[in-house]
Amino acid sequence: MATALEQLVIGIDIGGTGTKFGIVDRDGNVLFSSEISTKKHATTESFIDELYTELSDMIERSGGSGRIKGIGVGAPNGNYYTGTIEYAPNLPWKGIIPLVELMESKFKLPVTLTNDANAAAIGEMMYGAAKDMKDFIMITLGTGVGSGIVANGQLIYGHDGFAGELGHTIVIPGGRHHPGTGKNGPLEIYASATGVRLTAIELLENSTEESLLRAVPLEKLDSKAVYDAAVQGDKIALEVFEYTGKILGLALANAIMFSSPEAIILFGGLTKAGDLILKPTKESMEANLIQVFQNKIKILVSHLKESDAAILGASALAWEK
Amino acid sequence: MATALEQLVIGIDIGGTGTKFGIVDRDGNVLFSSEISTKKHATTESFIDELYTELSDMIERSGGSGRIKGIGVGAPNGNYYTGTIEYAPNLPWKGIIPLVELMESKFKLPVTLTNDANAAAIGEMMYGAAKDMKDFIMITLGTGVGSGIVANGQLIYGHDGFAGELGHTIVIPGGRHHPGTGKNGPLEIYASATGVRLTAIELLENSTEESLLRAVPLEKLDSKAVYDAAVQGDKIALEVFEYTGKILGLALANAIMFSSPEAIILFGGLTKAGDLILKPTKESMEANLIQVFQNKIKILVSHLKESDAAILGASALAWEK
Repeated sequence: MATALEQLVIGIDIGGTGTKFGIVDRDGNVLFSSEISTKKHATTESFIDELYTELSDMIERSGGSGRIKGIGVGAPNGNYYTGTIEYAPNLPWKGIIPLVELMESKFKLPVTLTNDANAAAIGEMMYGAAKDMKDFIMITLGTGVGSGIVANGQLIYGHDGFAGELGHTIVIPGGRHHPGTGKNGPLEIYASATGVRLTAIELLENSTEESLLRAVPLEKLDSKAVYDAAVQGDKIALEVFEYTGKILGLALANAIMFSSPEAIILFGGLTKAGDLILKPTKESMEANLIQVFQNKIKILVSHLKESDAAILGASALAWEK
Repeated sequence: MATALEQLVIGIDIGGTGTKFGIVDRDGNVLFSSEISTKKHATTESFIDELYTELSDMIERSGGSGRIKGIGVGAPNGNYYTGTIEYAPNLPWKGIIPLVELMESKFKLPVTLTNDANAAAIGEMMYGAAKDMKDFIMITLGTGVGSGIVANGQLIYGHDGFAGELGHTIVIPGGRHHPGTGKNGPLEIYASATGVRLTAIELLENSTEESLLRAVPLEKLDSKAVYDAAVQGDKIALEVFEYTGKILGLALANAIMFSSPEAIILFGGLTKAGDLILKPTKESMEANLIQVFQNKIKILVSHLKESDAAILGASALAWEK
């Protein structure tokens, strides 16, 4: 009986490749969820149309829109204050997109937006590894690298809502070119799925070492292929993770010396490589920290069910509002 | 009449070379101030003894210790939560120093400690360039490089009180060695008075270019000498500031992409070089920022009277308590 009146929220996680969405209850149960392609939509309008069609059906099955308190959206460069997505390098839509306005007029529900990593951080605080933490940094290692920073128990949005772009900080000045931003040497171009692929290609080109990866066609040389080779002891594949961890660890050390979190929480595809990536990351992090920070900052991997975590994080925004 | 009852605080700024201290009223007027050497004291005890002797006289002249609400201390690696100075690379005292405990037992007054840059940030918020700002980063460019980060209107202390060590973040991986920390390539070893001197020595060694600096004895080759040569159009001296600004700007860009402040406030000896350092810093900062942050984050130079600013910042802590 009571459940008939219980409020629900919608969580939407917009990624560079796909968009996950679902309907979530107060306890963090994802009642329904699905995914559509982000990439195939040349315009935000057609993207929102498809999302609306898919979600309308879910809303009906959940008992109608009267039960929905609101919609939380996590998206790259999503701005909490303005409700816009601005110049997101990994999305097909360029310039400034008034996402909240477009979605509210379509869905007739309140919509709250923040960047995908901020959404993930809120999700971890409500349901995950950061429960009871007041100072932590959430880092998402997917197609790109995102981050959400919590200090004094609050998400740091910055003066304009754009804080937390750790993936774009320059770790190797004059280093690898990021085609999305035009900058050289940002973390994202090394410590993402894209970065792992590029490192593998570079190492294969600059060495004559035998490798299982030489048999993999270039278009299939992704972080999964590198992982599969690494677990078989492939030297080049192992070196790819060593190198990635070395750079990620440096970036983590820099982030720690800035805001001194209790823990760093990692989430996303790359964390599936487990110790292959975590061990060199931790080693490099410790090596770059000054003494006061050494051996006390935890690196945790999100334990939220991966298919749900992105949706949960975004949905948590709708409760907060 | 009322002034006889007005409360006062003591502000103490402990630096690697000297320690400034003074008595301050509610409006930020520094009533008395002086300075002693930090460097010459091999132990914290002898340092506190000298400080006590000097301050006792000032306290008497201010109307006695009954008028003093408390003491605020800014010091490198000073920890707000524990009241200790831990492993400060630029101070003569090694290990963990229980400064608050030592000072309270000597002065019989409440003592509050934080790192020097956090103290400066609080001072700017109360009396200076950051009045009414909720998100800014204070960076002190002295013998070392310190920083204090304010987000959502609060100082970020981190989970353990050690946040804000931007000077130790690695900007050039594998770069110049920092003898105090053993790390390679931190901001502090480039963008401090020490760093400017090292850059000047490097540039002179690696070039045959004529320079006024070649006539300066090595022990006198400091940032002041470089400045004096630069204002006369000396090419090597100008290059020193260009190089310093390039690295400082990169570090500012990284800090901005992390916490998105409204402004960066610079303070300390290096800022005296004015546009010689600010112009290349700003250029490098903008070049390293992704689009959403470009042309909107201000770089401000602290306008607090330099002799007072460090004392004011530290004293502000005592009001906050």
